[in-house]
Amino acid sequence: MIDPAAFARLLCGYCLDAQPGQQVVVRSTTLAAPLLLAVQRELLERGAWPLLRAELPAAAEAWWDAAQDAHVDGFPPAELAEVEATHAALTIQAPENTTALAGVDPARIARAARARSPVREAAMRRRWCGTLWPTPAGAQQAGMGSSEFARFVRRATFLDHDDPAAAWGELRALQAHLIERLAHARELRIEADGTDLRLSVAGRSWVNSDGKRNMPSGEVFTGPVEDSAEGRIRFTVPSSPRGVEVAGIELELSAGRVVAARAERGQEYLLAMLDTDPGARALGEIGIGTNSGIDRPVGAILFDEKIGGTVHLALGRSYPETGGTNASAVHWDMICDLRGGGRLSADGEVIQENGAFRH
Amino acid sequence: MIDPAAFARLLCGYCLDAQPGQQVVVRSTTLAAPLLLAVQRELLERGAWPLLRAELPAAAEAWWDAAQDAHVDGFPPAELAEVEATHAALTIQAPENTTALAGVDPARIARAARARSPVREAAMRRRWCGTLWPTPAGAQQAGMGSSEFARFVRRATFLDHDDPAAAWGELRALQAHLIERLAHARELRIEADGTDLRLSVAGRSWVNSDGKRNMPSGEVFTGPVEDSAEGRIRFTVPSSPRGVEVAGIELELSAGRVVAARAERGQEYLLAMLDTDPGARALGEIGIGTNSGIDRPVGAILFDEKIGGTVHLALGRSYPETGGTNASAVHWDMICDLRGGGRLSADGEVIQENGAFRH
Repeated sequence: MIDPAAFARLLCGYCLDAQPGQQVVVRSTTLAAPLLLAVQRELLERGAWPLLRAELPAAAEAWWDAAQDAHVDGFPPAELAEVEATHAALTIQAPENTTALAGVDPARIARAARARSPVREAAMRRRWCGTLWPTPAGAQQAGMGSSEFARFVRRATFLDHDDPAAAWGELRALQAHLIERLAHARELRIEADGTDLRLSVAGRSWVNSDGKRNMPSGEVFTGPVEDSAEGRIRFTVPSSPRGVEVAGIELELSAGRVVAARAERGQEYLLAMLDTDPGARALGEIGIGTNSGIDRPVGAILFDEKIGGTVHLALGRSYPETGGTNASAVHWDMICDLRGGGRLSADGEVIQENGAFRH
Repeated sequence: MIDPAAFARLLCGYCLDAQPGQQVVVRSTTLAAPLLLAVQRELLERGAWPLLRAELPAAAEAWWDAAQDAHVDGFPPAELAEVEATHAALTIQAPENTTALAGVDPARIARAARARSPVREAAMRRRWCGTLWPTPAGAQQAGMGSSEFARFVRRATFLDHDDPAAAWGELRALQAHLIERLAHARELRIEADGTDLRLSVAGRSWVNSDGKRNMPSGEVFTGPVEDSAEGRIRFTVPSSPRGVEVAGIELELSAGRVVAARAERGQEYLLAMLDTDPGARALGEIGIGTNSGIDRPVGAILFDEKIGGTVHLALGRSYPETGGTNASAVHWDMICDLRGGGRLSADGEVIQENGAFRH
């Protein structure tokens, strides 16, 4: 369904631009073996140094099952050393079970995320790309057959185009137009059933997310002014961070901070994440999905936040290149689908309504 | 057949003595998944930091298939960084195919071994242990069924004892006796059909190899005086470095260096290895096998060199703790089985004859 060699070319070329002599670490599970081997070959042919890190599917759950406090509150020294010796990292989601960590106490997961900040920050200073290899578990999460899901991933990544990199270039051009309209906007407003939220993006930079760091991508995003968000928002697309299903999230924000939060499912996890650190209650990102190859949520944020016709907000860490300054161990994207009725406007001008961009 | 938890206890406790906070890297292929997961648990319970490095079975062959000269003549920078951030390393052989690299030009393998010296030297300055997990390919190499091979590994590692660590302690005591007899020896002589070799071990230290660095072990060894070996030796146990079968090796040594070499099978590989670097033509080790749980060769040097009743010599790198000074990217153990007729003597006193130790 997906040609591993073509996928590897897109990832190592378009996404990572791997150069001779560069150290590229490639992380996934053993279920992505066909793609891992193709990426190794592509990197070697480019003269780069591949290091494959294929996790055993059962290892993460087993780690949490035996981890002591010292493990949750620290990180392995060799992991930081590896990141620091690395030029680029490719992370390929390929779960055997998307709910493998659902039984782990969310407060411990939040502690571990905090403790691993040095590794994460070092990794984010390097070139990186995150993608997904279709597995039966991923298909199940999406509610699809395995072949159907593989076709979905193929469309979402533009691997169904003769020249996928060129197709990404076309989307980049469309997004550049959108950013022209947003670049001087001061206030964004999102309206929908249960949602009326205003926030400032004055002076912030918009990022044209063109598939280099996320494959697939298809969004433009920035970091809201930290104390600006006012109002309420209902996120209509369920979210499954680490396999915990969290659905029907409603947040109330005042002076940029979450002051009330509830969820129809997964409320305990939501509240634990909000208490990770002070930055977890502020917004780090607002993004606008543009990928029309992604037509429905599949329970994987890599895809869902890119659905053309949606907007998303992230609690927690902002991306420095946007001008956002919020710091947190959390970065949790939550999606509001406007296709069934809703509107995004900038300084009173409608940008997108009922999922369609207004030109 | 082998209880992974019991094996993991032996490896992390007796072999590595993993302590809280220590970084332990564990390398194998995905075929050793049961043992890898058990080792991860054991290390976590000890408060150490496990890092599992599970290689895809096909990755090594695929690497060689696409590697360029720069890859053969260098090493990935992140690999050295990882070693330097590590307290201990456990390497678990678990091949899917023991001849996976048989088609790779031996000269390229030798070049790669040379180029990787900095990584290897750094790794040897840390605590390490090498072992094997039985796989169908390992069994096939041994000419056994998979269950039979697993039972063989269980006996060889003393995992068939109620307290394997105590059984290793008993073998250590027996080996200490043997070393008492060898400690002041000046000249060793090996005699068998096609073999009459003398070499000096004057002033060298004998190592009591008690299963901590090799699991299984069961040998005592030292480094011969570099210019001392004189005579000829026929190695009667085949050797399969990296899957290349090399059998019927005969070496002639003069002033410590190999001056003539032939092999019934694998002669090309043998000659290429001898030309790796100057140290590859000198002896780095002489060892005496003592493990009576290993009763026949299985085509894996980890076991074969420990067979009670054999002696082995290694071309190449010596272990500094013996007083040996030979440096090389090569360390190739070759085995001479004395059980069918032969003798090892020290300064004229018979130490072992026809495979039995003389007391």
